[in-house]
Amino acid sequence: MRTVFHVSTPEEVPVVVAKVRNLLADESVEIESVAVVLDRGEAIARLHADSDLADGLRDLLDRNVALKACRNAARHPEVSEGDLLEGVEVVSSGVGELTRLQDAGYAYIRL
Amino acid sequence: MRTVFHVSTPEEVPVVVAKVRNLLADESVEIESVAVVLDRGEAIARLHADSDLADGLRDLLDRNVALKACRNAARHPEVSEGDLLEGVEVVSSGVGELTRLQDAGYAYIRL
Amino acid sequence: MRTVFHVSTPEEVPVVVAKVRNLLADESVEIESVAVVLDRGEAIARLHADSDLADGLRDLLDRNVALKACRNAARHPEVSEGDLLEGVEVVSSGVGELTRLQDAGYAYIRL
Repeated sequence: MRTVFHVSTPEEVPVVVAKVRNLLADESVEIESVAVVLDRGEAIARLHADSDLADGLRDLLDRNVALKACRNAARHPEVSEGDLLEGVEVVSSGVGELTRLQDAGYAYIRL
Repeated sequence: MRTVFHVSTPEEVPVVVAKVRNLLADESVEIESVAVVLDRGEAIARLHADSDLADGLRDLLDRNVALKACRNAARHPEVSEGDLLEGVEVVSSGVGELTRLQDAGYAYIRL
Repeated sequence: MRTVFHVSTPEEVPVVVAKVRNLLADESVEIESVAVVLDRGEAIARLHADSDLADGLRDLLDRNVALKACRNAARHPEVSEGDLLEGVEVVSSGVGELTRLQDAGYAYIRL
């Protein structure tokens, strides 16, 4: 099974890290693929390589969790695309990506 | 692909207008159909013809975006059904409509 | 059709009771099955047998609505598993359950 998490606020970023870990640790469900889509600048800014959450996020990336930042939101003054953790993908729009992934069979979970 | 947005607060109404525009502008995804379901009276009141958002909402209606207001919520004292923008549909329940659309293959995005 | 509601805050618990009732009362949609997944301790605590919401929740359970509490969240100090209403199911994780139900064809509604 596959799951996409939808995150908008900076406060939700550490919560989604915990929730993805819970999902991957749940042996009652076979998870093939997990993605996190962030669609607000303040949340995306927490994906910077110097973020206090960088270690937890790198761990997710190492476990093949896709972190996807909305290009429209990444124009926010707090976000510098060049400072994002290596492996974060910038997508043409958060809403387009959420549609595409659900159309491909991903379950959707809103933080 | 098809997408339904779920909106409850008045503050989310201008945000969903922007998000629908982002979705329709995203050339990486082929969108056949978009709906917005509003399930609280305070949000539905922003669909009045004299709303400050009326121009943006009329533009969405002109582009075949369906605006759907929950009948239960439309009983709210701030809402007058006769004052809603022409083209807004009143549905028997927001939750029923959200179920029906997802069952028909719509992706779901919660504001 | 089938619907799963996702609830996190205690304030959302009475709202979801009303929304499930609206869904079951909506004659325009044929509902086979409804579930509610709660993934935060403060919300799960409102499923105690002595909760002010107990009568409404028992009525939902009597109508075969499944109430599912996330085991991770049920470790919260406010929650005592033994005090939960009879019929509430504790699931291995809220996110796993939400994935499994959507994979089985449930529509998802976030409170």
